[in-house]
Amino acid sequence: MSVPVIAIDAMGGDFGPHCIVPASLSCLVENPSLYLVLVGQASLLEQLVAQHPGIDRSRLKIVDAPETISMDERPAQALRGKPRSSMRVALEQVRDGNAKACVSAGNTGALMALARQILKTLPGIDRPAMVTALPTQGNPCLLLDLGANVDCPADQLYQFAVMGVVAAESLGRDQPRVALLNVGTEEIKGTQPVKQAAALLQQAPGINYRGFIEGDGLYRGEADVVVCDGFVGNVLLKSSEGLAGMLVAKVEALFRRSFGARIVGAMALPLLRRLRAELNPAQYNGASFLGLQGIVVKSHGGAGADGFKAAVRRAAEDVEHDLPGQLARRLGHYLGGSHPSAVGDDVTAADGEPSN
Amino acid sequence: MSVPVIAIDAMGGDFGPHCIVPASLSCLVENPSLYLVLVGQASLLEQLVAQHPGIDRSRLKIVDAPETISMDERPAQALRGKPRSSMRVALEQVRDGNAKACVSAGNTGALMALARQILKTLPGIDRPAMVTALPTQGNPCLLLDLGANVDCPADQLYQFAVMGVVAAESLGRDQPRVALLNVGTEEIKGTQPVKQAAALLQQAPGINYRGFIEGDGLYRGEADVVVCDGFVGNVLLKSSEGLAGMLVAKVEALFRRSFGARIVGAMALPLLRRLRAELNPAQYNGASFLGLQGIVVKSHGGAGADGFKAAVRRAAEDVEHDLPGQLARRLGHYLGGSHPSAVGDDVTAADGEPSN
Repeated sequence: MSVPVIAIDAMGGDFGPHCIVPASLSCLVENPSLYLVLVGQASLLEQLVAQHPGIDRSRLKIVDAPETISMDERPAQALRGKPRSSMRVALEQVRDGNAKACVSAGNTGALMALARQILKTLPGIDRPAMVTALPTQGNPCLLLDLGANVDCPADQLYQFAVMGVVAAESLGRDQPRVALLNVGTEEIKGTQPVKQAAALLQQAPGINYRGFIEGDGLYRGEADVVVCDGFVGNVLLKSSEGLAGMLVAKVEALFRRSFGARIVGAMALPLLRRLRAELNPAQYNGASFLGLQGIVVKSHGGAGADGFKAAVRRAAEDVEHDLPGQLARRLGHYLGGSHPSAVGDDVTAADGEPSN
Repeated sequence: MSVPVIAIDAMGGDFGPHCIVPASLSCLVENPSLYLVLVGQASLLEQLVAQHPGIDRSRLKIVDAPETISMDERPAQALRGKPRSSMRVALEQVRDGNAKACVSAGNTGALMALARQILKTLPGIDRPAMVTALPTQGNPCLLLDLGANVDCPADQLYQFAVMGVVAAESLGRDQPRVALLNVGTEEIKGTQPVKQAAALLQQAPGINYRGFIEGDGLYRGEADVVVCDGFVGNVLLKSSEGLAGMLVAKVEALFRRSFGARIVGAMALPLLRRLRAELNPAQYNGASFLGLQGIVVKSHGGAGADGFKAAVRRAAEDVEHDLPGQLARRLGHYLGGSHPSAVGDDVTAADGEPSN
């Protein structure tokens, strides 16, 4: 089993280092086998770490990166400028073998662009996809892509399906049921890329493809892996988050109307709030990038300390499962054996300088 | 004010005439100013109506249409074949001035195709959009399109925004806030059609355009009109429906765990179920087609009697507001005066034989 050394982009996200550093140190205390590399403005990070004197510094390293990528910066800017941004340096820790995974709460588009440039995609994969597990009435369902790719041709959707299958298998799911998100379950429904991806999946050997699924079927637990483009996946995730929040607010309002209702509310609301937390997986669990030669987990920009800690735990689990290694070994099988270089490679190793 | 004569496609939907006929008759009892035209297999409809002897037959007409369009029939089949389908004949009642609106629980794609062929779109509108009002933490929000158009270029999204504004104004909303659904609120986000539609809306005179919105912002009530393509809108609607259902199921399960929790559950569940109903507007309220020269309301195929009754009420309201007339009068203004023929026309009148 790999020792989980995790590089933390300590400057990213809406809350920045004042939230990320304490959250990271708390992970170090909770998990005695964890090693962290905090990447960012070293003097500031040292100062923040010094406020927690009990920390085991032998499992904590600080790497200086004086530049920060803002939340509204264009990916192209992040790629060309700022050679010493905390996000870039954290990803380089993974590329250079100093860390097994990178966690960032920063700008998603910049993280995607830099991760592709620095870590490269696995053979056979055009673009990485963001994935998370959504709660359903049955087993949790892996949904991808969540927003890394807004426009996806059929072969990308097919690659997402394959990566989702391997990720579900790594979670112990046998013969995971795969479905394409669509506006109906009949064959005539949908956009051209979705129909073409369906044709590819129908012919794919070893994939348990179940056809189209609608948003309600997803929450009924009718599939283990649901595939869509990043625009649709992001809208599904964000609207689910908003709806869960609204439901809790409406229930609170209903329960305030009378004394009896207030008593009921006091008992029911903790349950509802727990459900709301469960329904915000991107916020509470982090989302993994699949398809890179390395592990990258995106924490919700506005997640706060608990959300960031969950993202670090997610990264440690991905290291334990060696998700990129499993993907590399299995992609050749599912992608028709046309990528033999993927089989048996040590995909977490560096593959040279980043291209521009 | 127009007398609401509503043509009912009595054969459509998952439940068919045995559900639709009693639901329709119940609307007739509840609303003494309502007139209905039941369209379908006349002998069967007569038989079903005869089971309700108290009905005021002076406000009820039965029109024979021996053919039925199935739920999985391709729109092209519905257009070319079956000249006497209940859906076609019901729409022809509107075209010919015998009814002010048509309600169908049948195949959405076929209804869209037949409605365009028989009623035609308003000047300046390329394709109709399906709209419904979603509950939010603030005012209800009109969301369109809900699935009538899976792929939309920027100018169609713009037209949807304009129709949404007029529909919101007809509901009494002053200067309705319009937003485009996107994967982020920053200008750099989104697909090309969404970015181009944003550019069109920024320049549009008289439209209170507020920029991009995410799914969570929609449920926080940050806009009165939210515009997206039909694929995205359908996924948002269906997943919201599924999530609300799952929440209620999970809360029920939590409340069953102990005696105390069961008591709380017994008090809280009716509230939660009411919320679930409110959150299934397509199922419980029906969805209006906007942009046609006539009123067409789609009831959820599996909605049952209550859902169908709500769709009939929705149609009666659309007749009262003369939505197509208002749209025709206002579109010229918003679409830059390039469609003078739209101003002042009697748009609910027939416009000739359907083209093929």
